[in-house]
Parts: sequence; C-alpha cells; structure tokens
Amino acid sequence: MTSQDIEKLRLQMRELTNEIFLTVQQRMEISKEIGEIKSHLCLDVTDQSAECDIRKSIMLLSKDIGLDSKFSNRLLNILFAESVKVQEMKQSDGKQTHLSVFNKAKQLEAEGKRIIHMEVGEPDYRAPPSVRNALIEAYDHGHYHYTETVGISKLRQGIAKDVGQGVPDSNVLVTPGARFGVFAIISALVQPDDEIIIIEPAWPAYKECANFMGARVRSLRTNLENEWTPNLGELESLINDDTKLIVLNYPNNPTGKILNENMLGKIIDLACAKSIFLLSDEVYSNHAFTRFRSILEYEYDRKIMVSSFSKRFAMTGFRIGYVVASKDIIDKAKNIQALAVTSVSEPIQYCALAALNNGGEDNTHLIKQRLELIMKYLDKLSIPYVKPDGSFYVFPRIGDEFDRKDLSLVDKLLHSGVAFAPGSGFGNQYHSFIRISACQPEALLAEGMEKFERIWSSQ
Amino acid sequence: MTSQDIEKLRLQMRELTNEIFLTVQQRMEISKEIGEIKSHLCLDVTDQSAECDIRKSIMLLSKDIGLDSKFSNRLLNILFAESVKVQEMKQSDGKQTHLSVFNKAKQLEAEGKRIIHMEVGEPDYRAPPSVRNALIEAYDHGHYHYTETVGISKLRQGIAKDVGQGVPDSNVLVTPGARFGVFAIISALVQPDDEIIIIEPAWPAYKECANFMGARVRSLRTNLENEWTPNLGELESLINDDTKLIVLNYPNNPTGKILNENMLGKIIDLACAKSIFLLSDEVYSNHAFTRFRSILEYEYDRKIMVSSFSKRFAMTGFRIGYVVASKDIIDKAKNIQALAVTSVSEPIQYCALAALNNGGEDNTHLIKQRLELIMKYLDKLSIPYVKPDGSFYVFPRIGDEFDRKDLSLVDKLLHSGVAFAPGSGFGNQYHSFIRISACQPEALLAEGMEKFERIWSSQ
Repeated sequence: MTSQDIEKLRLQMRELTNEIFLTVQQRMEISKEIGEIKSHLCLDVTDQSAECDIRKSIMLLSKDIGLDSKFSNRLLNILFAESVKVQEMKQSDGKQTHLSVFNKAKQLEAEGKRIIHMEVGEPDYRAPPSVRNALIEAYDHGHYHYTETVGISKLRQGIAKDVGQGVPDSNVLVTPGARFGVFAIISALVQPDDEIIIIEPAWPAYKECANFMGARVRSLRTNLENEWTPNLGELESLINDDTKLIVLNYPNNPTGKILNENMLGKIIDLACAKSIFLLSDEVYSNHAFTRFRSILEYEYDRKIMVSSFSKRFAMTGFRIGYVVASKDIIDKAKNIQALAVTSVSEPIQYCALAALNNGGEDNTHLIKQRLELIMKYLDKLSIPYVKPDGSFYVFPRIGDEFDRKDLSLVDKLLHSGVAFAPGSGFGNQYHSFIRISACQPEALLAEGMEKFERIWSSQ
Repeated sequence: MTSQDIEKLRLQMRELTNEIFLTVQQRMEISKEIGEIKSHLCLDVTDQSAECDIRKSIMLLSKDIGLDSKFSNRLLNILFAESVKVQEMKQSDGKQTHLSVFNKAKQLEAEGKRIIHMEVGEPDYRAPPSVRNALIEAYDHGHYHYTETVGISKLRQGIAKDVGQGVPDSNVLVTPGARFGVFAIISALVQPDDEIIIIEPAWPAYKECANFMGARVRSLRTNLENEWTPNLGELESLINDDTKLIVLNYPNNPTGKILNENMLGKIIDLACAKSIFLLSDEVYSNHAFTRFRSILEYEYDRKIMVSSFSKRFAMTGFRIGYVVASKDIIDKAKNIQALAVTSVSEPIQYCALAALNNGGEDNTHLIKQRLELIMKYLDKLSIPYVKPDGSFYVFPRIGDEFDRKDLSLVDKLLHSGVAFAPGSGFGNQYHSFIRISACQPEALLAEGMEKFERIWSSQ
C-alpha cells in the first residue's frame, strides 16, 4: 500500500462526495415543490409525522449498512432543517418576554417615568441580615479567589443538608443562578441530534437553551380548562428515540400549578421506562400553598433538580443557585461551568452559606395574601384564571383563543405605568394570557391592578 | 395540486434520502481504507490540504446547483468529522491544564498538605479597600437585584472612560469574568461551520469554547527560538473562506510575549482585508513591562477586546470582566449572557465600580521583580526561556522537542509541595515546557524554585 493508493481512493472519495451533493440538491427541489403545495393548502411547513417516518426508515437502513446512528441522525437533522428553510421565510424573532418588558420598563424609568413592576418574579423584601456580615467577612478573610468549579465545600454541604433525602455533597454543583444551572445541564446532556420536551406555558429559558444547542423542542401544551394539568397520553406520544430530556417546573411559572403526587410519579415512571433525563426546576418550591413533592423524593438516577437562593431568600441579584443530580451528571455540568465561568464568585458563595445558616423569615404567606388581592380584582372583572397552588404569579386569560392581544395590552399598561408579562413569552399558544407577579407591597399591587382595571374597562 | 401530489413527492423524497445515505456509506468505506493505509505509513489522520481541495470543489458545485453555501459547508463538516472518527480511535481526553493542577493542589491541601501555588495566575495581594465599602453599601442600599443584562450604567460608563479611545458606554458588556466574555463572543459569532485561528501556546479556553460550538480550530504555532513571534505568512496560509475569528492574547499567557506595534498592525490589516473578527484578550495589559498597544487603539469594526478586574485589582474570585466591541457585536454577546446568566451579580458590579474609581496600587513592578527572581533560578540551571515582556509568567523549556515530560515533572513537583502548570495544557506541541507563575511573595517563590532545583538536579 502506497501514497498512490491513497490518491486513487481519494479520487473515488471526491466522486462520491459530488454524488452526495447532487442528490441532496434534487431532494431540495422536491422539498420546494412540496412547500408550494403546502402553502396552497395552508398546511404547516414542518410535518412531524412525515419526518418521523423518514427517520425511522433511515435509521433501519443505517443499521443495515453500518453507519453510526448518531451520525445518521445528525445528517438527517441537517437535511430536515434545510428543507424547512427552503420552504419558509424565517419567522420574525421579535418575541416579547417578561425579560424584554423588564428591560423596557428599566429604560422608561431611566427616562424618569414611574413603573410598578408586576412583570418580574423578584421579591421586594430584603435579603437576610446575615448576608451583610458575610459580605464584610468575605473581604476581611480574603475570600475572593477562584474556588473549585463545583463550589466551596461548606456551601455544597449546606445545600446537601438543606435539600435532605440523603443527597451527598458530591451531587451538588453551585452555579451563578438557577438559569446557569439549566443552561449547564441542557448544554451538557443535549446534543444537536436530540429532542427535549417542555410543558407549556413555560419559562422561556428551557426552549432558548435547547435552541442554542441546536436541539429540537417538542411542546406539550396545557390549558386553563384542564387547570394546567399535562395529559400523560400526549406526553407519551411526544416521546421517541431522540427524546433526551423532559423539563418540569412546579410550582409553575407562569401558572402557579403544582402537580399532584400521582401525576408526578407517573411522569417519573415514564421517563424511567425510556431512560430520559428529567430536569425539575424547583425555584418556587419554598412558595407552595399546597403540598409540594420535590423530584429528589423519588428514586431515579437520571433526575436533576435545579434551584436557587433568589426567590427563597430575596437574593435574585446575587446570582447564585445550584444543581442536584448524580455525580456523573454533575461532572458533565461542571465541565460546562469550568468552560464558561471558571467558578462562582466566592464572596457570593459565602453569602449563600450565610442565608442557609441564618436565613430570613418565610414569606410564603405574604405572597399568598398578595396573590389573593390580585385575584379579587380579576374576579371583579370576571377574568378567568386558575387559582395558583404556589409561585409568585397569576396567569389570567384576557381574551379568546385567537385573540392575540397580550402584546398590545401589555404595551398599553406599561405606558400607563405598570409592567405585566405577555402570555406569549411563555409559549406561542398563550397570546390571550398575561402573567401578573405579586412581588410588590399590597398598596402598589392595588395601584397596578387599578390601572389594569381602567384600561381593561375602556377596551 | 392536492394532498396526493404531496404523497407522490414525498415518496420521491424518501428514495432520494435513501440514496444519499447509501452514497455516504460508500464514502465511509473508502475513508476506512485510506485510514488503514495512513496508519501503515504513519501519516496524520486529518489531512487539511485534502479536505481543503474537496471543500473548494464542492463549494463551486454547490454554487452551480443552487445549494446554500452555509448548508453545504455544514454538511461537509459532518462528513469530514465522521471520516476522521472512522479513521481513528477517539484520543484520550486526560489532558492536564493549569486548572486541573490547581484542582489537584486544592485536594492535596484539603488532605492537609502544604502547596506553594505557582500554577495559577491569581494575585496574592489584596483587593482595594474601596471594595470592602462597596460590599457593605451594596447590601445597605439594596443593590442586589437583577440588572440590565449588559451591566449597570455607571459601571459601563466607568469602563468606557477607563479604556479611553472614545469608546461609548453602549460598546461595553459587563460579564462574570473575562472567561465568560470569551465564551459569549465565541458562542455569539462562531457557528459549527466556521473556523477560528489561535496562536499557540495559548490559554486553553479559546480552543475549548470553539470546540464547544463545534467550530474548527486552526493553530498557528510559535516557538521559543523565534521568541514566540507569530509568522505572518503562516497566519495568512491558515485563513480561508470559513475563517471567522482570530484570537490574540498579549501580554501572552503563558509566554509573557508582547507583539510589537508593526506586527499587531499587520495582523489587523490582514483581518480587515478578509473581514475576520479579531478577539484580543488583554487581561494582562496592566502588567506590561514594555510598551503595550491595545487593539482599541486601532480602527476596525470587527475588533473585540476582552479584559477583567481579576489581574489588575486582585479580584479573581469576584468573577467580573468585560467586553468592548461594536454595538452590533455587543448585542449578540448580550443575548448569550441573557440566556446563560441573566445578568452579573449586582453587588459584584458595584465592587468593580469602586475598584475603578478608587483602585489599589500598581503591582507591575512587584511582579517584574518576582519574575526576575524565578529567572535567576532558571539561569543557574541553564534552562532556556524568553524573558517575558509582561503578564505573570515565565515559560521555560524543560526538555527536547520530543521529550514529553511536562506531566511527570509537574506531578513530581506537586507531590514535593509546589504546583506548576504543564506546557501541554497550552497546546499539544508544548510538552517540553512548563509555566511558572509569579503570584506569590518572593520568599515562597524562592522556596518553590528550590524544590524545583532539587528535583531538576536529581533527574
């Protein structure tokens, strides 16, 4: 065997590569034709069942001819994505979320306008006084160096003890906020050829992180009529061989829903049967008005719990949270954290430790009272909603299903001095909802709801 | 046109898809054969010139047959990557870096062992006292909320003023450390079908971030004989249509090199001529012993400067840095930051502001003296190195080119109580180097170097 042999083989390789691209081009032509017919018939561009059929048959073929299944999947995803692209104009990405309303509100404030913030889930009460001492001590003791990427030992121990369930320290990763926990887990566990399932309406970060990784998102939609309960049969039908992760978020943002134990158990059984990772975002677990069971109470090696100090200790702006999962999963998420941020700010880690050891009072009852105040206004206006089981929010319906009026209403409200979050930020199907946050003193909430009432009644 | 038409077209689509996969499989068979020959002839698995030829011809073909060039590139990258995979066993990823040595050193310390840290670039002196007040005030004034994703206005203004060159506030993004700045920029600007060029030896994060995004890394190697000066001709030869970004890092980690103005100007001209983004990591710019010119002094709309408060103000563990670039680039990096961390810890932003307004003394001279102490030991042992122009490091050669002995030496040193960073962490070609950091008081550095001398002399 010589270099000349290589040259001969390389020539063959070039010819085959050309052939591949010519066939791909033919495929795109067919795809365009299908696109034109679909547009005449007003059909959706993406046809999941057609894709699914092709995927199944190609996977069988790949197995027969000895191609790696991951590779074939990736190749297929690229072909599918390009087909969709040639079939449709890129959708405008002018999507509004609670965060974009918050940023607009901040701008208006900078221009001197007074805004009542009912758009973000940021507690108005103070962080525990123990945190003040922690800040001073961090400076005085020189606790402002790189720490181990996973977090300082004392804090990991504190978190492990706090979550209970016999979780060892090694199963804890301290992160710069729960958001980074979600980002690290999705980046670590999900590949471009994978699918994740989210239950909508949902905090937009799950979908955004999956999109960032080039993964496909399947949405299980829930609705007000069913009190935001997911349908298990539908969930099952969304699962396929590519499903890598299901995201749960209870108490839910934006609906305030808590799953009953029976339902949660069934979802865990389903994930377990199919070896799917289960990411449970429990940042509102300390604001539950009915019994809440953490995913940590269940036995399953692919469960992941994300939480933070933000909502419980009013420490949003400190940016500190954590992930609890098996050592194996933690190691993978740790690699993402090492890559992106090295480690979490050491003074802030000591603040979190102080809050755990000597935290503030429980504000659950306070939040519940405030939510009741908001609900009274909604009742008066006969606006439908499901009474929240927990979290900081009410998610009322402000129109009919096809009434895409959340954005214009939110905009009107913002310019009258109160910021609400548009429902569509939590899923495309929720344009007829808004999210109202109870993170202000009652007097301010009442003022905000009166502004709402005025604009609502003048519609 | 009816649904039946769609069915007919779909059948054709399936057949074409099958054909694509069958041809791909033939290509992989040829690839395996080439791999076997290469292994007999001891050739590298990846052959950049062969890939380059195929890429050129496929790009021409794609243009002719109307396939999107981005899509074709992506498809080719997948085919190439799979070819390399079928040709080689996955390289072991037991790579050691300064960070893994640091983590090991921390573990040894936890077990009660005393370690002199000469592996990390973490200043031993204190953060400015103004930071202590900033921490207390942040708590007292309730400055611990979500901030705008780009950072608080005052800090952006302060940074803009500090870097000078007429940079407006809107060109500044406050990040949780320079590392996140690098991560956000690479994530925002680089796609899986792009290439980035790094100049080795290099801080490993650039390559890791590019790998994370699935981009291809081309390394321009520099060497001790040429005093770590990059060869412009070689740089030019690495550039092709896929080149999206070049990373510069001067004063350099690990060599301490500063580029002369002439060379920097030529690199900028080259990037400009080809519209390539230029990322300049300037975290050591405040520790330059000769004239250093920031990339901000040059006119180029695709320049990006990353820096931090870590090295200048001894604030490593606070985790705060910044990116300076055009508004357009900042907006893209901001989206990554919003996705991953929402915003930077607000108390920490106030600390950075305090350091800027009332920072500590200049430690450049102190570091220079310490480096001279280290160099005296190296001179005594006739160990070659290039005298650093800046930064915290010396990067001596501890063996011949094919002497892959950095890991065993570093390991021996660590167990004798002093941590050094292995050269191979900064690039595969640097196994015969180690990086020595001058971030300890002279007495400790001397003790560390004496341990080094003992082990070196007993080899």
